[in-house]
Amino acid sequence: MKSIRSRTSLARTVALVLLASPGARTLAQVDPLPSWNETPAKQVILSFVKETTDAASPKFVPAAERIATFDQDGTLWVSHPVYAQLVYCLDRVPALIKARPELARVEPFKTVMSGNREAMARLSMKDLEKIAVATLTGMSVEMFQAEAKKWITEARDPRWKRPFTELTYLPMQEVLRYLRANGYKTYIVTGGGQDFVRVYSEEVYGIPPEQVVGTALGTKYGYGKDGKPFLTKEPKLLLNDNDAGKPEGIHLMIGRRPHAAFGNSTGDQQMLEYTKAGDGARLSMLVLHDDGKREYAYGPAKGLPDTKVGTFPQELYDQAMKQGWVVISMKDDWKRIFAFDQ
Amino acid sequence: MKSIRSRTSLARTVALVLLASPGARTLAQVDPLPSWNETPAKQVILSFVKETTDAASPKFVPAAERIATFDQDGTLWVSHPVYAQLVYCLDRVPALIKARPELARVEPFKTVMSGNREAMARLSMKDLEKIAVATLTGMSVEMFQAEAKKWITEARDPRWKRPFTELTYLPMQEVLRYLRANGYKTYIVTGGGQDFVRVYSEEVYGIPPEQVVGTALGTKYGYGKDGKPFLTKEPKLLLNDNDAGKPEGIHLMIGRRPHAAFGNSTGDQQMLEYTKAGDGARLSMLVLHDDGKREYAYGPAKGLPDTKVGTFPQELYDQAMKQGWVVISMKDDWKRIFAFDQ
Repeated sequence: MKSIRSRTSLARTVALVLLASPGARTLAQVDPLPSWNETPAKQVILSFVKETTDAASPKFVPAAERIATFDQDGTLWVSHPVYAQLVYCLDRVPALIKARPELARVEPFKTVMSGNREAMARLSMKDLEKIAVATLTGMSVEMFQAEAKKWITEARDPRWKRPFTELTYLPMQEVLRYLRANGYKTYIVTGGGQDFVRVYSEEVYGIPPEQVVGTALGTKYGYGKDGKPFLTKEPKLLLNDNDAGKPEGIHLMIGRRPHAAFGNSTGDQQMLEYTKAGDGARLSMLVLHDDGKREYAYGPAKGLPDTKVGTFPQELYDQAMKQGWVVISMKDDWKRIFAFDQ
Repeated sequence: MKSIRSRTSLARTVALVLLASPGARTLAQVDPLPSWNETPAKQVILSFVKETTDAASPKFVPAAERIATFDQDGTLWVSHPVYAQLVYCLDRVPALIKARPELARVEPFKTVMSGNREAMARLSMKDLEKIAVATLTGMSVEMFQAEAKKWITEARDPRWKRPFTELTYLPMQEVLRYLRANGYKTYIVTGGGQDFVRVYSEEVYGIPPEQVVGTALGTKYGYGKDGKPFLTKEPKLLLNDNDAGKPEGIHLMIGRRPHAAFGNSTGDQQMLEYTKAGDGARLSMLVLHDDGKREYAYGPAKGLPDTKVGTFPQELYDQAMKQGWVVISMKDDWKRIFAFDQ
């Protein structure tokens, strides 16, 4: 009896100490990045956070300036074989044709309606843009949100047969949480549609809509038949949030240079450059998809297969090495890739 | 001795209770809006916050959706006789002419350089836009920030002989703080320049740059002679954050409909409509400048003198009454206007 009681008492004391002192809890040996292997990439992240949040460190960053930006496709979740949003747009074509039957006879909608996968794979970037604009505009903001929300819960990735929202990288989710726990404001800065990503970013990444910067189309303010005002999504490009558009979008929407930025392809190059060029401690990291078994393998950096979706060429790799960015090897640096792994 | 000891002990107990229970501290009779008179406007704000933050209330708003937007000029600080940013642009003209001497012979710069106040007062909106574009673009983002920061600390309002940043309305500062203390994220949504307001918003209002939505010009990403990337401010209008541009800008930059919005003129009409048209508890308020003694008196609503700067016409007043917005009378509802009053 006595020994049980004393163990209970010890447990209580420990619990009380932990509750009373949040600092002690943080200092305890709880690994904030358990899905990362013990490789240099993990150490770089841990050191960056430690140095920038320690008031005694010369690399200290005041809480208000702790901004971290993350590309989404290929950086936070799977973007192969095609971007989830492109699947959404293609899936919306039948409903579009129902509303505007005249489009059924017009390319590229005719090809999409044919269901011919080979012909669809040959659609040009311009064709895909036409499909995106037609399926993402012309409705109220609320109607779009409802449609996109319904789709994101129902759609399944063809390989894993799971919702796209389960295909986020667990190690990156840990980085998001770790940064936030240390006072960093985390943003998504995506080439994808700002309104699209905002539909699920809070639930999936803990990132609220107002912290999603993305390719943005305009809206138009007007009044319904009931006299109530509403916003209609318009086919007017306000921000192409790719390449140079990323730092430009960051300035427009955030107004501060990030202290940490994460990407995976040429579209992120300028964001990583811009981040790294700031004063003091700056962290720029690139995810390299070199794990064909657990996810996908593409580059063409490091002799990996070439791709059109999220290209990571050798020049980008060389620039990263030269400018002190850190390349994350999915194969070597990540112990687990998905939460559903194992 | 005994009585002193027991008083000390009581004080300690009270202190401990207050420390241990932040709720108790809030519930204590500390008035969060001490610069407001005990009129209905104050009660409306107190009730709105109470109802939307009480989980048991049918009007409860989850913390993530607590967004409040504030116009700046005329709502948070003085905008008469002219907007502070216009003074900035005019003050920048000599430096502009030094850099580009050919402009000295061209209107409207010639008139500004003449120093003829009457001629300057006759400049058209188009002339003022030319001056704004010429003085706000063509330099790096960092150079602009440094210049604007220097100006804002040195410039003085002609009437009060104080920095413009001291001319903020104390009652509105209290509303900002009160909303934030209750989980609201406060935004500035201004017709003024986004980059300009961001220079001082954190220090003056406790609102960080990323929570300032304003009229925004584009930037262009490029590289300096040292190879370092930087952003140049461009004469390309991305967002005219006035009238319908306010709800459009709110959607672009925040992505959520506000639950509370504050304005003072026609430029805020659509923001207040859009806010009030949302489901559940929504608060739309307009500041009426009816205190010519302590500040300025203009409308022309309620028979006040007409103005070109921050017009509040009778139709706006009528719409406010019809749609359940609340008009704040500076004269009747505000006990103090400025922190330096008394």
